[in-house]
Amino acid sequence: MANEFDLVLERTLDAPVELVWKAYTGPEHLKRWFAPRPYEISEIDLDLRPGGIFRIRMVGPDGFDTGHGTPGCVLEVVENERLVWTSALGPDYRPNEMGEGCESFPMTAVITLADSGNGKTAYKAVALHKDAADRDTHEKMGFQDGWGTTAGQLEELAKSLSVVA
Amino acid sequence: MANEFDLVLERTLDAPVELVWKAYTGPEHLKRWFAPRPYEISEIDLDLRPGGIFRIRMVGPDGFDTGHGTPGCVLEVVENERLVWTSALGPDYRPNEMGEGCESFPMTAVITLADSGNGKTAYKAVALHKDAADRDTHEKMGFQDGWGTTAGQLEELAKSLSVVA
Repeated sequence: MANEFDLVLERTLDAPVELVWKAYTGPEHLKRWFAPRPYEISEIDLDLRPGGIFRIRMVGPDGFDTGHGTPGCVLEVVENERLVWTSALGPDYRPNEMGEGCESFPMTAVITLADSGNGKTAYKAVALHKDAADRDTHEKMGFQDGWGTTAGQLEELAKSLSVVA
Repeated sequence: MANEFDLVLERTLDAPVELVWKAYTGPEHLKRWFAPRPYEISEIDLDLRPGGIFRIRMVGPDGFDTGHGTPGCVLEVVENERLVWTSALGPDYRPNEMGEGCESFPMTAVITLADSGNGKTAYKAVALHKDAADRDTHEKMGFQDGWGTTAGQLEELAKSLSVVA
């Protein structure tokens, strides 16, 4: 599925797949790791079903603030395995008007998780773009650093969660 | 769900809902009614699952030919009830580059069917746009005439199908 227009991040996370899924899909958990520190998520809307909203507001140093932002759309939800959302569409699949900055190009994120044994999780995040220009823009915005940092934060948060909680 | 950016077509079709669904989702059937005559569908790719391809090639008088066109993406499939696809995304949810003519703006189509008794079907087609300008463009391209004509062709084809075939 991935092609030359995509950016890919792969990590083995030291946490069980159920907890990584929980950390990824619980809005209160997601809020705590989804922005690379010192950036923070100040608001989140997540309706975990195809057609549901996915929207975050990110704030940071020097008054950085994405504002409410354009809402994205959840496309696929397979528990403990796969989560897909896109910024090309909003809730109920309405096409989005592209915005500015990190919202200037449409993107689809395909997140896959797999049990890799010993309580670890194979984590893969693929960002799909429509062309090489958007891929390059995203790369220059710091895809690898940003998504890499948050993968570490995701691992940390997942480890802190209890399987039974 | 529909708002002021949408175009809506509603018809009661004189055919049972199972046959309308069949006429809508069988590529060989779809080919025979999806273009308003004298236009014709010369090629069709339809993979009826979320993330699957939806692409048509339309040809017509005076050498009209959409070419292979940009592939769209199927989003939801609920047998006999609901079919959603979008031109904002391609197969596997990759964001699409917009093209020309009828591909110059992104659109999501939400088709709903319901049994309205006496072997008839309530058919509703909603085209979702990102803004009023795209809605107006689509309207001027002849949405009501085009989708209205094809609704009649859909009814005609559905009636010609047998429930058991």
